[in-house]
Amino acid sequence: MTKLMKAVVTTLDEDNPLLEKEIPLPNVDSHDVLVKITASGMNPVDVKQLELAVAAKEERILGFDGVGEVVSIGTDVKKYQVGDRVFFSGELGRTGSNAEYEAVNEDLVAKAPDNLSDVEAAALPLTFLTAYEMLADKFGISMAAGAASGKTLLIINGAGGVGSIMIQLAKWLGMTVIATASRDETIEWVKQLGADFVVNHREDYVSEVKQLGFSEIPYIAVLHSLDQHFEAVAKLVGSYGHIGAIVQSTQPLPVGLIKNKAASLDWEFMFAKTNAGQNIASQGEALALLTELVSAGDVQSTITQTVDGFSAAAVLEAQQKVSVGDMLGKLVIKY
Amino acid sequence: MTKLMKAVVTTLDEDNPLLEKEIPLPNVDSHDVLVKITASGMNPVDVKQLELAVAAKEERILGFDGVGEVVSIGTDVKKYQVGDRVFFSGELGRTGSNAEYEAVNEDLVAKAPDNLSDVEAAALPLTFLTAYEMLADKFGISMAAGAASGKTLLIINGAGGVGSIMIQLAKWLGMTVIATASRDETIEWVKQLGADFVVNHREDYVSEVKQLGFSEIPYIAVLHSLDQHFEAVAKLVGSYGHIGAIVQSTQPLPVGLIKNKAASLDWEFMFAKTNAGQNIASQGEALALLTELVSAGDVQSTITQTVDGFSAAAVLEAQQKVSVGDMLGKLVIKY
Repeated sequence: MTKLMKAVVTTLDEDNPLLEKEIPLPNVDSHDVLVKITASGMNPVDVKQLELAVAAKEERILGFDGVGEVVSIGTDVKKYQVGDRVFFSGELGRTGSNAEYEAVNEDLVAKAPDNLSDVEAAALPLTFLTAYEMLADKFGISMAAGAASGKTLLIINGAGGVGSIMIQLAKWLGMTVIATASRDETIEWVKQLGADFVVNHREDYVSEVKQLGFSEIPYIAVLHSLDQHFEAVAKLVGSYGHIGAIVQSTQPLPVGLIKNKAASLDWEFMFAKTNAGQNIASQGEALALLTELVSAGDVQSTITQTVDGFSAAAVLEAQQKVSVGDMLGKLVIKY
Repeated sequence: MTKLMKAVVTTLDEDNPLLEKEIPLPNVDSHDVLVKITASGMNPVDVKQLELAVAAKEERILGFDGVGEVVSIGTDVKKYQVGDRVFFSGELGRTGSNAEYEAVNEDLVAKAPDNLSDVEAAALPLTFLTAYEMLADKFGISMAAGAASGKTLLIINGAGGVGSIMIQLAKWLGMTVIATASRDETIEWVKQLGADFVVNHREDYVSEVKQLGFSEIPYIAVLHSLDQHFEAVAKLVGSYGHIGAIVQSTQPLPVGLIKNKAASLDWEFMFAKTNAGQNIASQGEALALLTELVSAGDVQSTITQTVDGFSAAAVLEAQQKVSVGDMLGKLVIKY
């Protein structure tokens, strides 16, 4: 008799896009661990993927960030054993964490920090990988304490999921961090996470940054619409500087503005590695670093909200809250 | 009595934009070497700067690539002495090599290769620095023999000045090189310089590259109009790949095309370092590597044409030949 599990599946019905189903447990490939999910973080990419699934009339199990216990392992698994408590953010092309069980390649996984609860840990993987890959792979910063000391990072939208973890990672790297925020609570939040300066992205932040004494910024992370911010950050980026971006651009941009500074426009998309099947073990390694940083107290969870119970209604509620787009930190579903 | 020298100076007259003048020798700052120029390479940036000087009604001495003998040194110069034969490409903001003497910061200079004549050596500095900085600083490739073995580089416009030296540098790095060329003589030229494959940039080179068996290219150097080529190279660039560009873009570009591949658009402009006063010694060091490579026979001069004699007419003739934009290799003025 095939063992069944509860999963939340996308439907063909726009008005009712998520449904609970009893389905067989996922196949466990030779390099997979099978994880019993206890918490799942909600990210903007979940919202985007739900839209795409409904538009494409595809039944999919979404959910990327996951935390849980390993309950079985594939024949070639070397790094984990049954009983390990792990976290990860999975792959775009496989069934996700909005289910009781998920099969994940062991290379994408790390042991979850002992000093975080499941929901606290589930807030982190996808946003940390995004922040880590932008700084390490794209900006070329070595991932060691103090390695970027004396360098400045401007984060547009510091209070969101990626911003909240990037501030902390950048401080561990020794960077001076200027974060943007526009509301009292987000200003307070980014300061508490370690931002050295806060400017308002709804005002003329180019002038604000210059008035703080920074004529040029070597590293700029645009964690909000690049279309909206490109011309402003083009004025601030320094010689051989980097503008990193994560939100899809839907209009042509005047990239010639940064030519004479020999600057770069760097896209970061954490699923690009698994989509291409390239260098995927770097993601498990990055999450292992995250666990070290959390254990050492250098990084705290960015969780701010919890939705209780695993159901279609809970996933939909979480989706709707994140889709508004003004998140402070992260929202997690507790199964 | 002030010693005078002949210089070719930009004028305020569009129809007659260059003029010979007798002017005082340049000031030699404490970190400068004063070089008696014997050959000067002509680059597209000279053409652009002449246009800008005439438009701005500025009298300037252009000329970037230079070769010659050190005839005096500033008080703090450590690396060179009178009698050294050096080459360099100088700075945008100082008087250039279209003069009998030029003062250059010693950090921007290297000893010229003994096995090249002055005109052969003068062909190389600016194009080599551009190629080197794109591959090293922008693509993150280590500059050691064979360091990028197994990686593929697509060069759009392989036969021009930068392409001709980049092919050779990439081959020394161990890369597989696909160069574009469209005429019989340019196709022959890029093959002779080491290109493994040649595709035609006037045809559907996206299909041509795929037919060669390359589904994705990690490194693409667009050494021609980015505006014209961006959409094609966006199709070819791989996951976490790089599109490097050197020709100013004058229209907005659909950069969102490379978002899901987490690719980068990297501008390279070799004057960005001296303009910002940052990391300028890296240019002298890169030229010292060039001298090693030429001495070892790993890189040959890219010179294809010489204009004889130092005069306003000679500089103008060289300017006009390069401004046509279909150069094969490099043109040098022999003083």
